[in-house]
Amino acid sequence: MSSFQHIKPAGKAQFKDRYTTKAAELLTTYTDGAKGDIAILGAPLSKPSISHSGASFAPDAIRRSLNSFTTYNIEEETDISSKTIIDFGDIAMHPTSIEECHQRIYQAAKEIAQTEAAPFTIILGGDHSITTSTVKAIKETKGTVGIIQLDAHHDLRNTEDGGPTNGTPFRRLIEEGHLKGEHLIQIGIRNYANAKAYHDYAIENGVTVYTMKDVRQRPITDLIESALHQLDPKVDTIYLSVDMDVLDQAYAPGCPAIGPGGMDPDTLSEAIQTAILHHKVQTMDIVEIDPTLDIRDMTSRIASLLVLNTLIN
Amino acid sequence: MSSFQHIKPAGKAQFKDRYTTKAAELLTTYTDGAKGDIAILGAPLSKPSISHSGASFAPDAIRRSLNSFTTYNIEEETDISSKTIIDFGDIAMHPTSIEECHQRIYQAAKEIAQTEAAPFTIILGGDHSITTSTVKAIKETKGTVGIIQLDAHHDLRNTEDGGPTNGTPFRRLIEEGHLKGEHLIQIGIRNYANAKAYHDYAIENGVTVYTMKDVRQRPITDLIESALHQLDPKVDTIYLSVDMDVLDQAYAPGCPAIGPGGMDPDTLSEAIQTAILHHKVQTMDIVEIDPTLDIRDMTSRIASLLVLNTLIN
Amino acid sequence: MSSFQHIKPAGKAQFKDRYTTKAAELLTTYTDGAKGDIAILGAPLSKPSISHSGASFAPDAIRRSLNSFTTYNIEEETDISSKTIIDFGDIAMHPTSIEECHQRIYQAAKEIAQTEAAPFTIILGGDHSITTSTVKAIKETKGTVGIIQLDAHHDLRNTEDGGPTNGTPFRRLIEEGHLKGEHLIQIGIRNYANAKAYHDYAIENGVTVYTMKDVRQRPITDLIESALHQLDPKVDTIYLSVDMDVLDQAYAPGCPAIGPGGMDPDTLSEAIQTAILHHKVQTMDIVEIDPTLDIRDMTSRIASLLVLNTLIN
Amino acid sequence: MSSFQHIKPAGKAQFKDRYTTKAAELLTTYTDGAKGDIAILGAPLSKPSISHSGASFAPDAIRRSLNSFTTYNIEEETDISSKTIIDFGDIAMHPTSIEECHQRIYQAAKEIAQTEAAPFTIILGGDHSITTSTVKAIKETKGTVGIIQLDAHHDLRNTEDGGPTNGTPFRRLIEEGHLKGEHLIQIGIRNYANAKAYHDYAIENGVTVYTMKDVRQRPITDLIESALHQLDPKVDTIYLSVDMDVLDQAYAPGCPAIGPGGMDPDTLSEAIQTAILHHKVQTMDIVEIDPTLDIRDMTSRIASLLVLNTLIN
Amino acid sequence: MSSFQHIKPAGKAQFKDRYTTKAAELLTTYTDGAKGDIAILGAPLSKPSISHSGASFAPDAIRRSLNSFTTYNIEEETDISSKTIIDFGDIAMHPTSIEECHQRIYQAAKEIAQTEAAPFTIILGGDHSITTSTVKAIKETKGTVGIIQLDAHHDLRNTEDGGPTNGTPFRRLIEEGHLKGEHLIQIGIRNYANAKAYHDYAIENGVTVYTMKDVRQRPITDLIESALHQLDPKVDTIYLSVDMDVLDQAYAPGCPAIGPGGMDPDTLSEAIQTAILHHKVQTMDIVEIDPTLDIRDMTSRIASLLVLNTLIN
Amino acid sequence: MSSFQHIKPAGKAQFKDRYTTKAAELLTTYTDGAKGDIAILGAPLSKPSISHSGASFAPDAIRRSLNSFTTYNIEEETDISSKTIIDFGDIAMHPTSIEECHQRIYQAAKEIAQTEAAPFTIILGGDHSITTSTVKAIKETKGTVGIIQLDAHHDLRNTEDGGPTNGTPFRRLIEEGHLKGEHLIQIGIRNYANAKAYHDYAIENGVTVYTMKDVRQRPITDLIESALHQLDPKVDTIYLSVDMDVLDQAYAPGCPAIGPGGMDPDTLSEAIQTAILHHKVQTMDIVEIDPTLDIRDMTSRIASLLVLNTLIN
Repeated sequence: MSSFQHIKPAGKAQFKDRYTTKAAELLTTYTDGAKGDIAILGAPLSKPSISHSGASFAPDAIRRSLNSFTTYNIEEETDISSKTIIDFGDIAMHPTSIEECHQRIYQAAKEIAQTEAAPFTIILGGDHSITTSTVKAIKETKGTVGIIQLDAHHDLRNTEDGGPTNGTPFRRLIEEGHLKGEHLIQIGIRNYANAKAYHDYAIENGVTVYTMKDVRQRPITDLIESALHQLDPKVDTIYLSVDMDVLDQAYAPGCPAIGPGGMDPDTLSEAIQTAILHHKVQTMDIVEIDPTLDIRDMTSRIASLLVLNTLIN
Repeated sequence: MSSFQHIKPAGKAQFKDRYTTKAAELLTTYTDGAKGDIAILGAPLSKPSISHSGASFAPDAIRRSLNSFTTYNIEEETDISSKTIIDFGDIAMHPTSIEECHQRIYQAAKEIAQTEAAPFTIILGGDHSITTSTVKAIKETKGTVGIIQLDAHHDLRNTEDGGPTNGTPFRRLIEEGHLKGEHLIQIGIRNYANAKAYHDYAIENGVTVYTMKDVRQRPITDLIESALHQLDPKVDTIYLSVDMDVLDQAYAPGCPAIGPGGMDPDTLSEAIQTAILHHKVQTMDIVEIDPTLDIRDMTSRIASLLVLNTLIN
Repeated sequence: MSSFQHIKPAGKAQFKDRYTTKAAELLTTYTDGAKGDIAILGAPLSKPSISHSGASFAPDAIRRSLNSFTTYNIEEETDISSKTIIDFGDIAMHPTSIEECHQRIYQAAKEIAQTEAAPFTIILGGDHSITTSTVKAIKETKGTVGIIQLDAHHDLRNTEDGGPTNGTPFRRLIEEGHLKGEHLIQIGIRNYANAKAYHDYAIENGVTVYTMKDVRQRPITDLIESALHQLDPKVDTIYLSVDMDVLDQAYAPGCPAIGPGGMDPDTLSEAIQTAILHHKVQTMDIVEIDPTLDIRDMTSRIASLLVLNTLIN
Repeated sequence: MSSFQHIKPAGKAQFKDRYTTKAAELLTTYTDGAKGDIAILGAPLSKPSISHSGASFAPDAIRRSLNSFTTYNIEEETDISSKTIIDFGDIAMHPTSIEECHQRIYQAAKEIAQTEAAPFTIILGGDHSITTSTVKAIKETKGTVGIIQLDAHHDLRNTEDGGPTNGTPFRRLIEEGHLKGEHLIQIGIRNYANAKAYHDYAIENGVTVYTMKDVRQRPITDLIESALHQLDPKVDTIYLSVDMDVLDQAYAPGCPAIGPGGMDPDTLSEAIQTAILHHKVQTMDIVEIDPTLDIRDMTSRIASLLVLNTLIN
Repeated sequence: MSSFQHIKPAGKAQFKDRYTTKAAELLTTYTDGAKGDIAILGAPLSKPSISHSGASFAPDAIRRSLNSFTTYNIEEETDISSKTIIDFGDIAMHPTSIEECHQRIYQAAKEIAQTEAAPFTIILGGDHSITTSTVKAIKETKGTVGIIQLDAHHDLRNTEDGGPTNGTPFRRLIEEGHLKGEHLIQIGIRNYANAKAYHDYAIENGVTVYTMKDVRQRPITDLIESALHQLDPKVDTIYLSVDMDVLDQAYAPGCPAIGPGGMDPDTLSEAIQTAILHHKVQTMDIVEIDPTLDIRDMTSRIASLLVLNTLIN
Repeated sequence: MSSFQHIKPAGKAQFKDRYTTKAAELLTTYTDGAKGDIAILGAPLSKPSISHSGASFAPDAIRRSLNSFTTYNIEEETDISSKTIIDFGDIAMHPTSIEECHQRIYQAAKEIAQTEAAPFTIILGGDHSITTSTVKAIKETKGTVGIIQLDAHHDLRNTEDGGPTNGTPFRRLIEEGHLKGEHLIQIGIRNYANAKAYHDYAIENGVTVYTMKDVRQRPITDLIESALHQLDPKVDTIYLSVDMDVLDQAYAPGCPAIGPGGMDPDTLSEAIQTAILHHKVQTMDIVEIDPTLDIRDMTSRIASLLVLNTLIN
């Protein structure tokens, strides 16, 4: 760097207020042995998506959105400026082999889990197809996995019709033996968003399904606590899989599969805040944000807020 | 069609999951004598609109949005994949004679009503000017009509200043003797969205008016049930006229006359679900969506959901 | 003007319904001695903004949005068509001297306050930096000022790092001796939207702070009434400062600093309606709308509605 | 107007350079007896268009674009700041009767022609359907009309299939006896932009047709001079009808019927500059700009330049 | 279909002029044994693209753009309304196996070539990765293939770094033995658009390379005739591969890899018109249009024009 | 950095082809004593602009666009991959003092000039107001400055009406004695883009003015060579000031002051290539690109190409 008086490196923010820490400043590039409060890893893969998706741009968009937040949580009167977010960077994807991409995600997720760099890890997708790989990696590192999935869709499609698409992650986990159906709890499943066959599959395999009707009728904290209570005695670690399309289209315009009738962001946030209080909840993914479709990064901004909230507990 | 192994007709979806029925697949082009569960007819007319409107593109947008939904209603645990939506197609409009367009809508609505192809018919506008024609057709087919209108506006403007615009449909019905004021119930009328003169006209003609204040203060099911109770003994058939601008601008960005202070989609959906349980509710229109102004077909997606919900009752 | 039969002046609306008064028609250009029900003044300044902002276009956008409203408040059954909005026009800003701009705002606000043209005055920003100038003008005209600020941010940044930016207006008022901290009440302050140092500054200076948690947990009317009760005995006049980013991003997409977790427009509207009932509430500003980022003037439409509501009390 | 030091009327430009006259300042609202160098009249009608069109917004957009130009023509070293553009305003259109709209255009065009307010008049469309009305008015005021039409399309469609659409203006003029085919010269007609039947109609009726191939192969000045030479002895007045879609889509992205293979703006400008040197060229229309489709008013800016150039001759 | 008077099938154009044939009407779905003047096949694949690409939407966009053209070529005074475009439809792609996609393209291209349905076939991409598959299919059907490639890029990248991406099609053809370097002629290669290593590869393998400098300095007809003259004695069939990014960004805003310094559409059109006069030129592809990035389908409209021009020779 | 196999740092390109060097890779952050072939410095200032401008985002956009180019110039058969672009970063601007911003630009430009890090320096604006500061710095470092300005506008406005706006840079240089009028040569000045008073000022002060008519009638190389010939004996160093709005709006949609009738990019590129062959041409600025208005960074892409071309001479 130069030492000129009024010159700053290219790409840095124009203005710096000496008393303000931007949340993005918490990001610390991982180096061997580093420890932090949470860790993030980008999995910028969206070619497996059934519909055209730019979800591969989401890790950048979410990191960028962290510049729109400070480190001070006024409601909890807590400043997280001393917290560290270990940033492992992004997994480099293969341009033409989706199988290789999924393999790389598995491998990278496993390697970073083994670093034990942070007690809580967030994987930023990408589309939902990444979850098979990350959960498999977590299972091999931490033992039996239970999943609380916040999603409008079951994501239990058969793989014969299209291979490992973003409609199949939990089906693949069950079929490949990495996950028992009864260790999967789905919250926010929506009307006219899934085939009956996949709902039947869920039921037949012991998956617990809470629809949006359940979300409207019961406090989200109840649903999450039930889920935690159900999983706690059976699994070694709990994984939160947050498909942002669980939100209503008015709040999350940047999801590929938008629609009416979804959750609002406060409810989603409360769900996650409730869950992370449980000590077995150690990993989360946030998937299905396509920044090329979003409006002013609104959906990524919500994702950033979810990330920050995990630093408060 | 060719019989090549991996070729599909132009315009068809790339990917087909064998277990998933898209709601759009329920659409069945009408042929003489066909019967279905509901029927739809497009009335792609927006030239009568006072402000520039592309509502003529809405029938296509709503049909297109049906591709974003499956046939499984998880909250009711009901699969509607065996239901049939008779699609009568769209009324061909005259490019330069609005009078002729309105006449064609009347004639087509009457002809399709006479087919008795389905117990419930939905007309997809178009702007609200179409409703005079369709109600007139329904009256001649089914007898005295009562109307429950969900709308931010009275649509009772005088016709001297602009002829049969989208601000006049219910005025024209009353003045032409096709509708009694007391058979018209308006729900969702909004502040600063109407002239006082037209509110006075409503009151003087016995129209029942529920404002957004009423909607905020009473359950929508109550309002609808009151309306049904009021109309039932007096009319032969009840017509739902759904102007999508009854919704708040945050939810329905694609309406020409957007504004704050409107209904949310769950309330609108509940209104319609309550209404269609009544056996005299046999016709509905959905009007005032301009897909050229919409964001990612959000407003048309809500319309599609309203259509699908009429298959559950 | 010409007297041709079917010609109208350039720029006027195509269609005129004889019974409908558009809210924009209430705007009356100020002439010496004129009196009205409320007065508006545009302060189209956004160059002091820390981030790129087109808030200088907001006065035009808000006036334009008044064309989307009529004068009839159906919920109160009140027609405001006989009310007058004195339009003082816009302050002409200097292209390259922000100091001069702030001075002009001060001077103009003072001059118009001295006209006593209306009992209630609304300044349309611009960014929030304008408030230092307008409050100073009000203080010199009306005496000790109390402020109720609806905002996601404290706007109490230090001025050494960037001068009189849109992050500093209340800090400058306090430091320059125009405002006591205990005369400032902030409502809607949001998580991760402020530095801890500025929250500390607020507390140390006796500023009352209500966060979004307070807004979620207590009726907004309570918060406003508490604020009025607290200020009433201590100040001569009360100033409402409405930063539109107090609203959630789903409702106010046109604010430069959008984010999730904010207020909805009904709550904001109720806050203002409650406040203006108090006789000391005589001035309001509406700031931080950037029409170049907005969607279909949605945010300006909400601002217009807030303006109209001040005519009902 | 108020006399405050730094306040300007709402809607006026923020900044005024004392030495710069904006071209928009040449616009002078017509009053009885006024005289100017040219006159403009807006005909904001696009409902007759075959495809959805917002060309009704073009008169406003063209006037607005005049703010992007000064009055100094450096190539001719001529300042037009002392010239006057008489602005007759816009014709008020009927919302639902296109026949009435066309009648009003005819009547207004005739009335303004009779004022003899300027030696050259420009009608700003609107779509091309307006030209039948304006030419008829000119004929009744000035005698036999010859037309030089710059257009990608013949606009000679039959009227049975859609009435007086924007595809029919010259057909209607010929069929109604207001124009002889041999008095019509079309320049810029494009491949795959017209039915063969209408080309045949042109030839059978003695219309002179220059295709884009002619434009590519011969200097535009030659084509225009041939046209003038051909019309001069036969007609009393010459009317230029400029359909902006004669331009290539890269230059005129705001035309409803864009396409590749068109003229560039310099050629169009040269055509008009050549034509207006002839004393019988007294009227021009500029049609088929839809500002809602345009990019940054690019197409309207070209139109503004064409208007300004008519002040130099 | 119904027989109602004024109803048309959903999705059909509103207005029909009885004398006008739209170019899209020339499209005839293939049935066994059908014969036409040209044939088209969609290869909607863009997942192999190095950068995010929606080129998979291009076949639909190009077909849609054919609705913007009629069948009359006025410059040649030729009506192509009696011509037939056999539409084979689109190849159904596998969502997660790019290898399978390429295999399906190969297979489909071979099957349709074997039908001999038309003397000239156009494959609509998709990205440029499809060309390896189609050329291989053509070679197996028609013999030794020579290629004239119109492109800003060599598309001769190594495959080790990313597999069969859209940067590799001609490299793969050469390395897999389907194409000799001296049978490949590249026209329009641009500055700073390729690695030196790939230019070296081209030269070492006997590829003929014409840069944009050559295009600026020599008539395009000369370049094409040289290319044909060079290939004619050596190959059995000549394949035109048209990457639309050979055009300048001002004309083809919808290509993923836009840039300044490219060809204009008239030059590209002339190149193709010259080439197709040669009897060995029997196949063409048009690739690298991403309709999600395009402006008003401008780039697809040029593609449609190129398609139509192949019907004139 | 971590040493995981498939992980890359956040923000880096997904895909790396081992043989391809992106032009952006030539950027080397300056460190004391570093030497390169050219140097760049960002001056992200646009608050002095008369109209709303986001030109402050241009340095980032131009650097980003360098990722769209490789290092191989095929027309010159030259690979610039061994060249170095010293990147000094961006000048940190003061949020509210434009005077301070201009002072910082002056100081930074002087400091970097004194490093002699490269024989040719390019300043990336920002708006045109920056040029007064940079030229003053160059003069103090290198002696008498001659300027070749490529621009649609004179930029010789008086400063009394608005201070040091983007309309005044050359006026300020002349009035402050840093530049003689006869050392300023303006090329590309456009019709209706300037006040006559400023053209008069140019002539009276001995400025050489070439209009677009000159550009159309004479080869650009002639104009540049005349300019160089005229300046060479009189000045110590020659500065190229490139206002991108010298280009036609169809090519440079991202300039704040777009309009028709401008230069094409090939001509602009040829002008610069001709100029830089002269040994006294040592500094260039590129100003007036607003990436928030641009289409797909088209205008920044042209700027990037201009930068790269300076590495070939």
